[in-house]
Amino acid sequence: MNKLSGLERAEVLTQALPYIQHYYGKVIVVKYGGNAMQSDELRQQVMEDIVLLRLIGVKVVLVHGGGPEISDIMSRLGKKPEFVDGLRVTDKETATIVQMVLAGKVNKELVSLIEKKGGTAIGISGIDGRLIEARMKDERLGFVGDVTSVNIKPINDLIEKGYIPVICTVGTDAEGNVYNINGDTAAAYIAGALNSESMILMTDVKGVMRDMKDPSSLIPELTVKEAESLKEEGVIAGGMIPKVACCVKALEKGVKNVVIMDGTVPHSILTELLTNDGAGTLIRR
Amino acid sequence: MNKLSGLERAEVLTQALPYIQHYYGKVIVVKYGGNAMQSDELRQQVMEDIVLLRLIGVKVVLVHGGGPEISDIMSRLGKKPEFVDGLRVTDKETATIVQMVLAGKVNKELVSLIEKKGGTAIGISGIDGRLIEARMKDERLGFVGDVTSVNIKPINDLIEKGYIPVICTVGTDAEGNVYNINGDTAAAYIAGALNSESMILMTDVKGVMRDMKDPSSLIPELTVKEAESLKEEGVIAGGMIPKVACCVKALEKGVKNVVIMDGTVPHSILTELLTNDGAGTLIRR
Amino acid sequence: MNKLSGLERAEVLTQALPYIQHYYGKVIVVKYGGNAMQSDELRQQVMEDIVLLRLIGVKVVLVHGGGPEISDIMSRLGKKPEFVDGLRVTDKETATIVQMVLAGKVNKELVSLIEKKGGTAIGISGIDGRLIEARMKDERLGFVGDVTSVNIKPINDLIEKGYIPVICTVGTDAEGNVYNINGDTAAAYIAGALNSESMILMTDVKGVMRDMKDPSSLIPELTVKEAESLKEEGVIAGGMIPKVACCVKALEKGVKNVVIMDGTVPHSILTELLTNDGAGTLIRR
Amino acid sequence: MNKLSGLERAEVLTQALPYIQHYYGKVIVVKYGGNAMQSDELRQQVMEDIVLLRLIGVKVVLVHGGGPEISDIMSRLGKKPEFVDGLRVTDKETATIVQMVLAGKVNKELVSLIEKKGGTAIGISGIDGRLIEARMKDERLGFVGDVTSVNIKPINDLIEKGYIPVICTVGTDAEGNVYNINGDTAAAYIAGALNSESMILMTDVKGVMRDMKDPSSLIPELTVKEAESLKEEGVIAGGMIPKVACCVKALEKGVKNVVIMDGTVPHSILTELLTNDGAGTLIRR
Amino acid sequence: MNKLSGLERAEVLTQALPYIQHYYGKVIVVKYGGNAMQSDELRQQVMEDIVLLRLIGVKVVLVHGGGPEISDIMSRLGKKPEFVDGLRVTDKETATIVQMVLAGKVNKELVSLIEKKGGTAIGISGIDGRLIEARMKDERLGFVGDVTSVNIKPINDLIEKGYIPVICTVGTDAEGNVYNINGDTAAAYIAGALNSESMILMTDVKGVMRDMKDPSSLIPELTVKEAESLKEEGVIAGGMIPKVACCVKALEKGVKNVVIMDGTVPHSILTELLTNDGAGTLIRR
Amino acid sequence: MNKLSGLERAEVLTQALPYIQHYYGKVIVVKYGGNAMQSDELRQQVMEDIVLLRLIGVKVVLVHGGGPEISDIMSRLGKKPEFVDGLRVTDKETATIVQMVLAGKVNKELVSLIEKKGGTAIGISGIDGRLIEARMKDERLGFVGDVTSVNIKPINDLIEKGYIPVICTVGTDAEGNVYNINGDTAAAYIAGALNSESMILMTDVKGVMRDMKDPSSLIPELTVKEAESLKEEGVIAGGMIPKVACCVKALEKGVKNVVIMDGTVPHSILTELLTNDGAGTLIRR
Repeated sequence: MNKLSGLERAEVLTQALPYIQHYYGKVIVVKYGGNAMQSDELRQQVMEDIVLLRLIGVKVVLVHGGGPEISDIMSRLGKKPEFVDGLRVTDKETATIVQMVLAGKVNKELVSLIEKKGGTAIGISGIDGRLIEARMKDERLGFVGDVTSVNIKPINDLIEKGYIPVICTVGTDAEGNVYNINGDTAAAYIAGALNSESMILMTDVKGVMRDMKDPSSLIPELTVKEAESLKEEGVIAGGMIPKVACCVKALEKGVKNVVIMDGTVPHSILTELLTNDGAGTLIRR
Repeated sequence: MNKLSGLERAEVLTQALPYIQHYYGKVIVVKYGGNAMQSDELRQQVMEDIVLLRLIGVKVVLVHGGGPEISDIMSRLGKKPEFVDGLRVTDKETATIVQMVLAGKVNKELVSLIEKKGGTAIGISGIDGRLIEARMKDERLGFVGDVTSVNIKPINDLIEKGYIPVICTVGTDAEGNVYNINGDTAAAYIAGALNSESMILMTDVKGVMRDMKDPSSLIPELTVKEAESLKEEGVIAGGMIPKVACCVKALEKGVKNVVIMDGTVPHSILTELLTNDGAGTLIRR
Repeated sequence: MNKLSGLERAEVLTQALPYIQHYYGKVIVVKYGGNAMQSDELRQQVMEDIVLLRLIGVKVVLVHGGGPEISDIMSRLGKKPEFVDGLRVTDKETATIVQMVLAGKVNKELVSLIEKKGGTAIGISGIDGRLIEARMKDERLGFVGDVTSVNIKPINDLIEKGYIPVICTVGTDAEGNVYNINGDTAAAYIAGALNSESMILMTDVKGVMRDMKDPSSLIPELTVKEAESLKEEGVIAGGMIPKVACCVKALEKGVKNVVIMDGTVPHSILTELLTNDGAGTLIRR
Repeated sequence: MNKLSGLERAEVLTQALPYIQHYYGKVIVVKYGGNAMQSDELRQQVMEDIVLLRLIGVKVVLVHGGGPEISDIMSRLGKKPEFVDGLRVTDKETATIVQMVLAGKVNKELVSLIEKKGGTAIGISGIDGRLIEARMKDERLGFVGDVTSVNIKPINDLIEKGYIPVICTVGTDAEGNVYNINGDTAAAYIAGALNSESMILMTDVKGVMRDMKDPSSLIPELTVKEAESLKEEGVIAGGMIPKVACCVKALEKGVKNVVIMDGTVPHSILTELLTNDGAGTLIRR
Repeated sequence: MNKLSGLERAEVLTQALPYIQHYYGKVIVVKYGGNAMQSDELRQQVMEDIVLLRLIGVKVVLVHGGGPEISDIMSRLGKKPEFVDGLRVTDKETATIVQMVLAGKVNKELVSLIEKKGGTAIGISGIDGRLIEARMKDERLGFVGDVTSVNIKPINDLIEKGYIPVICTVGTDAEGNVYNINGDTAAAYIAGALNSESMILMTDVKGVMRDMKDPSSLIPELTVKEAESLKEEGVIAGGMIPKVACCVKALEKGVKNVVIMDGTVPHSILTELLTNDGAGTLIRR
Repeated sequence: MNKLSGLERAEVLTQALPYIQHYYGKVIVVKYGGNAMQSDELRQQVMEDIVLLRLIGVKVVLVHGGGPEISDIMSRLGKKPEFVDGLRVTDKETATIVQMVLAGKVNKELVSLIEKKGGTAIGISGIDGRLIEARMKDERLGFVGDVTSVNIKPINDLIEKGYIPVICTVGTDAEGNVYNINGDTAAAYIAGALNSESMILMTDVKGVMRDMKDPSSLIPELTVKEAESLKEEGVIAGGMIPKVACCVKALEKGVKNVVIMDGTVPHSILTELLTNDGAGTLIRR
């Protein structure tokens, strides 16, 4: 790309104009985390995309999880995973570790990367400003939480003051308990509460594909109805089922459209939002 | 350029990031007019650049003349040009025609093009809000004016309210006389009064060249001192002398840097500001 | 009048107090143009009235046409008028001339007069800030436009920032075409969109008269219903029919009352608004 | 005056235009009281002037005393006046009566008159918001106060919120004592603290006259120097000495000019400010 | 109390925390006057409570009467009370005396006390800013007024600017007549118009008691229904009947709860609002 | 304390009035951490004090460290402490653990406690909004940082939006490195940059004592000069030396006064600020 002339670059910029105009002043929630955050270089590119979006007037909100890092610290702290019906049991200590790793490690690393790229970010958790209120999902699972409400004031305050809000998905309740919340679900609630233009779920697959082994079978756009049919057909299966369910939840809560995309492809966010190539699978009502 | 992939486009965008960050929130005065406004297509590209700059946070102010269109209407209205010492005599009627063509024809066409590209513009003259106050330069020349002061309130009001100000360079005085003002000079005064980061003078040559016939002899950057030497050497000569004088005036009045560039090259503004290629000759203190 | 003592003058001022209180902070649209703009002295008096109104807290919006000046320039440019069913055909070139004369000549002259009287004005056209959106009325007439919408943001922005908005009535569409719009109609749409307290149509007759030759037969006040009866009776006839139709349109769109008055009578606006004499014919719902 | 036509009235209004423009947005302190407040009709006219001034954009502050009413209530309450060196002794009870009459009777009557004329006023004393801080002038006189500081915040707050501040001149100190303050002096301090354009002292004489018995000997304008000479000559004598001293004090504290005028002449304020007749004696630096 | 240690004091403060949080940012109208204002020391304590409430974020509005002081001045001025059906006849002169004593004496004394305690207050009457509009209740009673409307703008303006509004309860009408208004009723209307969280009526009895002679029979809390039963039972009788009626009126107009308490008990307001002891009788819907 | 009557409690509250008035609207930085944060109950009391201060209008900023918790997690993660000249070596991994424990564990626990007490807090680190910029102190120590600048915008933004800022003391540089910063020093820089009224250093000793074993030898107040003499005398020794140095640094940077107090004594902050008992040692210039 570096061989492009200044003129060629200028043309690319002006060709992005209608896309920039479309997203100007709108809220976009980017869910980043887990397997999509594989390398430092990838993270940097994602943060670069986010800084650029903010600069050109998009109100980006970054929501992240951090499963692999949690598991890593837990095993180093000697905590053994325990499961009930295939779901991880989160005792009080585990909840504290989740909070510590997400709010203290992953969150600050993302904030730091954004600032390295010239953006200004403030990283908070669902505990700060009582952002994510939650309750216990199932006593047997311990401190795994269902979102009961999202308080958007802190997010809007940070946006208004010029910061990119970076949010890790632990929740809290009136007693001060800390809950481990599924990142995708939290992002859907937050995007809904903010009436976002778009929610972008970054995963490690290209999107919804007819044949998981064949990238060329990617379905670029889906309605909620079509998604339901595809699930009945068994095309949407396995780990894609909760992803799609989460997208449908976001759409129900008022998000205009949701995109599932591959976070391991460089600059996939800008490609999706600011070019006519698109990336991943866009789901709309 | 249309063969570029989405990813390649995204990369171009992110490579523009440091430039966008540099100009974010700053004022840039673009002087456009005369021979640089040759074709409709070129005008559209310049307006496209301006709309993009505004969208990404640059406070662009467009200052324009319109010599060829004035001459055209004058000849159609049967006015014969008259000269004193090589300067055009501007009687009252001519001053009115200049005002009419600049404020009523060229100004509105530029406003219309900006809006077609998705921007929002308001076109005003030096008369509106007493923006450009002037006095007679030389009685023998009639209503040719020297700028006595620039009132930036109307410009700042329009910027604050979200418009791209488009300004045509006629001036006025307390008695309500209208003066024909040299466009480059007016732009220099306006840019100075606004403490602009940059003033861009769009002409129909590439910039300051050692050999006017050899584009490869373009001098990409000059200090004021160097410009003076070049003038003494005779490198800066002919029509380039007042252009450069005007740039020096702008720098003296507080503009950080000035660029003389070829307005007939597509997207030269974006190339200069948002890529590391540069365009034309940059003059700094 | 100059023989009045200071006390007598002070009394006149205090007698205007209840009228000033009534209009304080309200929007009044003054349509000025055509045959009412006959002499320089008259124009100055009208502008003086407008400056005074603004100063005492009335939000005046000046809308103007300029038929005679358009015809003058057109004939000098060698354009021959062409008519279809008695309506002037406006080809693209004519539309440009209309724009040029209204936005570049008449508009700036009015702005200049306002400023000479100590007011601060910014003159814009229906193109600026996409103020008047229009579409072709009839293909055979060319670029004669019907108003499709009025965007009041630029007007309110200028008022808020302390300027008297001076608007010339050309319209535009998404493709950037320019339309010649009937001035009275445009004023009615603008007054309606602004929820004006009053719209004042300045003509060259005293108002609605029972007998056009007898000024003493002026009807000082009418309801819409009464106007309709008078039209059926033939009392409202000829050029007064579209004037009154335009007033009714303004009332339908939310203007509180409309006054048709003689713009060639000195200070008729102040007489109407700030004394209990009244001037012209007031029409209300 | 009622025989004037609408047009004649309109002309009077437009002739006031330059005066209105001059005073627009400026602060004028009107000191009203004592013998100038003789009749109800006069009071109404003064309040009418003030309401009109406020409406046309002048920030009027009304400062008042009320000597005759204080004496009246005191004698009805059986308090006997006592003097030291010709100055009235103000014991604690007298101070309370002064406060009661000024803040509770005169102040509210003026507020009420302003509102009857369509203005909006809030009446406060020097105690409210610690507006006038004072200290004892001379122990033998009791609670007669010298102004130590003026706190303009309450005045500016009321102006900003749209009220005409009506202020009675009692002062207070940190212990909560109440002081009787000379009204003219208090007005001078207030006008100075507000950087007023003008202070108007309403008395029951025409102004400074060469011969007190000959109204035609009124001196329309004086500098501070000239005033001093006139005092030495004995032209300024008797009760006019403290009046003029007070005006000089106001000028020293930053007021642009001061006018001593006859408050018993109808509409003398408007005559002075908005016509070229003037009224009384204007003193400037 | 002075023997308490710093820690004990700190504990008392933190125990007030939930109460402070509850009232933070809410409006509370305190009606003070008549027999509750018996001693200077008591007044000081009440004002201290009010200053503290304001400082911790409660928007306190102080409404006061001043019966005993009115009677005192009236008798000193030689006015004899006259009664119709047991109600005091208020002729024009009496109305003026009421206004003078309330607005000029009591009001300013309360303002002064608040400022002595470090608060900032502005004292106004129902005349200022047309705060309390009233009409004659009964021709035979003269200028005794019924509240027709409350204009809360002046109160909110003063609160917004940081002052404690101190209001005396005289009313006015369009003609500028002054009316004597029952203080409790005026407070109820004001509290209702402000949607207050609470109205506190300070009297000289403990509250509603089963047996007026037995303080231990105080009823700490009542619903409107219960109050009606108690009235039928004769428990609420005599002077308590209009007090309770006034409370019911306030509740109907939107006040959340009303407390009748003994203003002669030191710090009864703080005891009621910021401790769990409570004071007096709380009435709620 | 619970035996106090409502009246006694009200008296305590009003006795705090002058203290509350003194601190109203001022910034106070509380440094909390290390050995002062020994028990959950103590933490709750400190947070209660902070919530109360904020509620009564003090702009509290909470700065915290968390040494013991860092050591605990480090040892559980198998990291062995290493020392150079008695200072802990902080390799990159250790710096990450410090960041994780402070920003993810301690910070969120304090935020959660504040919210449980009814306050609203947002917890950030020195990385967020580039709050604390730092550089390496000594290569041999690794990522131990010296503060190079404090960016107060994020703190002021959070205060303005109504949050209690809770800040953990890790710093960052342009390359995105994370530095372990001494908490007391960071608090001094932050307090200085904010021009705080007061900085409170909570430790586990009573303050500066003549004899560390005798609490009654506590020195309640010191000037900087006296502190220097005491250091020379050896009275200020051991761990108290850097504490006092840090206080002097804060005073030099503009803090009005600094208090060293025992954070293990309940409600010591309120005792110091809102009662006349005081707590600990106050140092002033």
